[in-house]
Amino acid sequence: MIYFDCDYLEGAHPHILQLMQETNMVQTSGYGEDAYCEKARELIKEACQAPDALVQFLVGGTQANMTVISAALRPHQGVLCASSGHINVHETGAIESYGHKVLALPAQNGKITAEQVYQYVNTHRADPSFEHTVQPGMVYISHPTETGTSYTKEELTALSEACRELGLYLYLDGARLAYGLAASGNDLDLPTIAKLCDVFYIGGTKCGALMGEAVVISHPDLKKDFRYIIKQKGGMFAKGRLLGLQFIGLFENGLYEEVGKHTIKLADKIRSAIKELGIPFASVNTTNQIFVILEDRQIETLSKEFSMCFFERVDESHCVMRICTSWATKEENVDALIDALKAVV
Amino acid sequence: MIYFDCDYLEGAHPHILQLMQETNMVQTSGYGEDAYCEKARELIKEACQAPDALVQFLVGGTQANMTVISAALRPHQGVLCASSGHINVHETGAIESYGHKVLALPAQNGKITAEQVYQYVNTHRADPSFEHTVQPGMVYISHPTETGTSYTKEELTALSEACRELGLYLYLDGARLAYGLAASGNDLDLPTIAKLCDVFYIGGTKCGALMGEAVVISHPDLKKDFRYIIKQKGGMFAKGRLLGLQFIGLFENGLYEEVGKHTIKLADKIRSAIKELGIPFASVNTTNQIFVILEDRQIETLSKEFSMCFFERVDESHCVMRICTSWATKEENVDALIDALKAVV
Amino acid sequence: MIYFDCDYLEGAHPHILQLMQETNMVQTSGYGEDAYCEKARELIKEACQAPDALVQFLVGGTQANMTVISAALRPHQGVLCASSGHINVHETGAIESYGHKVLALPAQNGKITAEQVYQYVNTHRADPSFEHTVQPGMVYISHPTETGTSYTKEELTALSEACRELGLYLYLDGARLAYGLAASGNDLDLPTIAKLCDVFYIGGTKCGALMGEAVVISHPDLKKDFRYIIKQKGGMFAKGRLLGLQFIGLFENGLYEEVGKHTIKLADKIRSAIKELGIPFASVNTTNQIFVILEDRQIETLSKEFSMCFFERVDESHCVMRICTSWATKEENVDALIDALKAVV
Amino acid sequence: MIYFDCDYLEGAHPHILQLMQETNMVQTSGYGEDAYCEKARELIKEACQAPDALVQFLVGGTQANMTVISAALRPHQGVLCASSGHINVHETGAIESYGHKVLALPAQNGKITAEQVYQYVNTHRADPSFEHTVQPGMVYISHPTETGTSYTKEELTALSEACRELGLYLYLDGARLAYGLAASGNDLDLPTIAKLCDVFYIGGTKCGALMGEAVVISHPDLKKDFRYIIKQKGGMFAKGRLLGLQFIGLFENGLYEEVGKHTIKLADKIRSAIKELGIPFASVNTTNQIFVILEDRQIETLSKEFSMCFFERVDESHCVMRICTSWATKEENVDALIDALKAVV
Repeated sequence: MIYFDCDYLEGAHPHILQLMQETNMVQTSGYGEDAYCEKARELIKEACQAPDALVQFLVGGTQANMTVISAALRPHQGVLCASSGHINVHETGAIESYGHKVLALPAQNGKITAEQVYQYVNTHRADPSFEHTVQPGMVYISHPTETGTSYTKEELTALSEACRELGLYLYLDGARLAYGLAASGNDLDLPTIAKLCDVFYIGGTKCGALMGEAVVISHPDLKKDFRYIIKQKGGMFAKGRLLGLQFIGLFENGLYEEVGKHTIKLADKIRSAIKELGIPFASVNTTNQIFVILEDRQIETLSKEFSMCFFERVDESHCVMRICTSWATKEENVDALIDALKAVV
Repeated sequence: MIYFDCDYLEGAHPHILQLMQETNMVQTSGYGEDAYCEKARELIKEACQAPDALVQFLVGGTQANMTVISAALRPHQGVLCASSGHINVHETGAIESYGHKVLALPAQNGKITAEQVYQYVNTHRADPSFEHTVQPGMVYISHPTETGTSYTKEELTALSEACRELGLYLYLDGARLAYGLAASGNDLDLPTIAKLCDVFYIGGTKCGALMGEAVVISHPDLKKDFRYIIKQKGGMFAKGRLLGLQFIGLFENGLYEEVGKHTIKLADKIRSAIKELGIPFASVNTTNQIFVILEDRQIETLSKEFSMCFFERVDESHCVMRICTSWATKEENVDALIDALKAVV
Repeated sequence: MIYFDCDYLEGAHPHILQLMQETNMVQTSGYGEDAYCEKARELIKEACQAPDALVQFLVGGTQANMTVISAALRPHQGVLCASSGHINVHETGAIESYGHKVLALPAQNGKITAEQVYQYVNTHRADPSFEHTVQPGMVYISHPTETGTSYTKEELTALSEACRELGLYLYLDGARLAYGLAASGNDLDLPTIAKLCDVFYIGGTKCGALMGEAVVISHPDLKKDFRYIIKQKGGMFAKGRLLGLQFIGLFENGLYEEVGKHTIKLADKIRSAIKELGIPFASVNTTNQIFVILEDRQIETLSKEFSMCFFERVDESHCVMRICTSWATKEENVDALIDALKAVV
Repeated sequence: MIYFDCDYLEGAHPHILQLMQETNMVQTSGYGEDAYCEKARELIKEACQAPDALVQFLVGGTQANMTVISAALRPHQGVLCASSGHINVHETGAIESYGHKVLALPAQNGKITAEQVYQYVNTHRADPSFEHTVQPGMVYISHPTETGTSYTKEELTALSEACRELGLYLYLDGARLAYGLAASGNDLDLPTIAKLCDVFYIGGTKCGALMGEAVVISHPDLKKDFRYIIKQKGGMFAKGRLLGLQFIGLFENGLYEEVGKHTIKLADKIRSAIKELGIPFASVNTTNQIFVILEDRQIETLSKEFSMCFFERVDESHCVMRICTSWATKEENVDALIDALKAVV
């Protein structure tokens, strides 16, 4: 069986495993205060051209989201996000578990706009009962989004300006950031993201690392006591050096970019084939998640050899299926999939 | 100025104030364990034909909601409600502040249906990622709703059956229950509500009391340690006897019914006049909140003598205004309002 | 039966009930934004010589504590207090329910010292694992304390200086403040308390009001969005005017002082008699709570006519009993108690 | 520099790294539902002779504690533990962050007794104000404790009986369980612990694994929906297979026992030398943490070659230092340390 279900099916990029192997018996202090973490921080700050940023490492995405959001908001504040945002639908209420309402806005292809933010905040402020409703304190976006779409530089700039004008924090969830940066048509880079956002995270788990997300904090107010919050939320990793090693591996020799390019090349190959075959897309994007509409009959045949992620049923005989590529996807498997798609059409 | 903004503009029904006056210097123990509270509990259990119910008194509605919901749910559970439900929009995230997501369903005239509950819960249970999403653990409804509509016995029965079949608690917020019970066409009564719901509250604050809501718990699991939760949530009222007195006042001589009838009679009088005058309703109900669409010009004229509650803007020259009657509304003021409406049409 | 159990046995001071009666049918807007609340705020700010303070009214003490503390602290911060402090022992974990650890310090007669605060905070800051422990963010004291003792001006000044130097908020719980201010030997007054504390509350419930506590906030950072937090914590009282009326009643004509003097005069009378009779005190103070050690045999006899509050067992044949006076205590009952004490000695 | 600071200075036992290497490119589903996790579960249930237990894997100890405790308690309940317990002092209030008070009992060598539990719970239940205080709902113990001591079978049996009689859950934090099981004089084993506790965790991070703790739940009520809580608390590890691999490595061929024996042998060797040299112990235990009192002068000399963990200052010229061994400690380094100790005495 060949799996295209998601982008965390394998372990780590061999280069990272190699680093772990080499340093395994080196003794370091714990909790992210070792030399490997320090080096990883420097590499990331350099890549972001953000010498004053605070970089901290967390094990996973939900943990990163709940730690950042809980650190940033006062009790009566909530976080604006797309209704399809990960914190709204796929974290079992982690944000609410720390007391904050997720304020869902109608998503447009997984994204929200500066206009929506202005409208929501201004409506809140003009409401005579404003104190009886949750105050928006932050905007959360994912880039790429949960449906694989991405923000343009123009869109992100508009969101950033809206947040700064309105006094809200802007937080970007970059679980799949490598794939966004490598997507065709992308006009964002790490320095721009670091400049436009108050805080964001560079995803490791889905982009070649064994695990780990690097939270990059630009806004001075968010840096204060952030490590206390990490510890309180259960995210202070004892052998923190492991997270440092992941990001040394990803940022030392351009591996993060390389991982992105490899993944997108293979996704684009599948996308082209699907287009040629006339199989309809459920939604369109240029990153590593491909959403196609297949007949049940086709799915049944394909599923003898290939595993894809069921997304939703369209009608009695069609479903949306998600096909993911990743740093670990082999081109030969992509070719096999394309052949199989041809066969079922 | 004559106010029709809401139903908590005045103090208490004179009969209740009288009771407070008479008993003011009597010494009682605190925290709702005095003879007045005991008597009020008996009156309420009798009115509900629910001898085994647990009745506890709280000062206000948000407090009642957060106490009941926090007592009922496990950390990963959320509460289903209409998107217009009070807990979703007008409690500054009180439910989330105790860790629970409010799972908003599209409201139909402020109400939700058994079908919506079945669909939501069954979709959740069928989702392969169910553990990654908040588990619905309770259904919250308000009756009358925030827009003045009410559930029928059939609708409430269907909701109750859905909840029992699915294993969710059913909770009814009766902030304005007196007005629901007195509304024309109503086919619900307290014993039916007590039987169909696992827990509900009988609103005092908006129905003649100085303050206070009586939580009536039928489900045995919800009774356990409920008073600990009241204390933890800041709702254990030192001079608990005051809440007992409110409900003795309301339930001893049929005052709760009388308050309902008076209020609805006056609301119906306004409603008839509006209908006759051809002023459009923004939404239709038979309780004590009337939502009308008025021209800005009309509003300006009326507002010299009458205060109403601005609800929302319809277009450049029209707004929805809410007119409320209550136990304290005087018929002469209703007549004056009707005359004024006639004058501006 | 004559009760000396506590200071919230009766309703409200007749003057306050009178005010409620007179204004009962006046229509006002809700939630503490009416003219009565405004007037009460002005009276309190004047009494505190704190024109810039923010004054907000809450129904009870636990609610005041959890609202203030939740508004003030970030998630990783805790609140220092005496181990006997109300928030540590008698609020069913209300502070923890909003995420904050209560950091209990050994109490000396119910009090803590500036030295203890310095030592705790400096130890925390010097700890290499400081990020793994809760950060002290506030000092909570009660004045008078739970055992009836009071802080001197010197002690409060020292605590205030410690907090300002260390960057912690100082919060004073004044549930029985009227009795502290009237106690013999007291050298504190409202303006001094308002100056030395960042936030405190003036207790109404136990000092003549039907209910209600007036939170007085001096520190600018604590004022921001405080009313959102009130609403979220269930403390936004619909008929807020009632709380305004309580404090108009208490502060308009010196009633708060008068209540204090009356109460302390009667407490002192009991204290003198106990001293003369040679009955041992369990602890010593000059406020309205008297802790005496009585023989079980004496308690049994007394309890036929008088109710006191059992505090703790001393040995096989002795208990500590608490005797409270209040604004409502009648001198004739005090005399009867003294006679009874004489009879059992 | 040779480090004896703690037991998480290195990466993973080479056997485990080997397993990770071998399986790195195997594709598995995520979130702990893969075949490796399934196999690890079976191995652990077998080792515990607990076929009905629910075994779930978490990344770290604080996360395990907060997930288990939050899953087990209702909002008004707290958790009893030794004042020196990890949850009370070294988790930045993680337990309180989910609303629960940690109820600290005076520790005796890091341990608490069944008698303390009986007394606390019975005092709570007899208190007339019981509803105003946090209800004890669970007992948390660490074994070995934070000071290296261990419970005997008799002590754990007594605690278990107390908890079952009183209706509290018993939870054992086994962060260093391998070292407790291997300690001289130990009379506990995994099946006994699984039988006596309602839930416990087998520590991986400090006992040879790269990371990971295996939570073993015996009590049926605690199993329900546990994985939702894991996800909500940020502990649902995307590449869950990694945690499965850790525990396959530790339990497949007796590695967990072997790690324990190696570590304890070296700790005992250091302990014997210290005893012979007449260096005083600060406290006595038989596990892998050694607490010695050294002169500042001695510490200074030793610290040129050896790093130990500063624990606390004893007097002007002496400190308590902690020396830890672990699965990764080399005998040659132990010998060097002993030589150095001899030299400074």
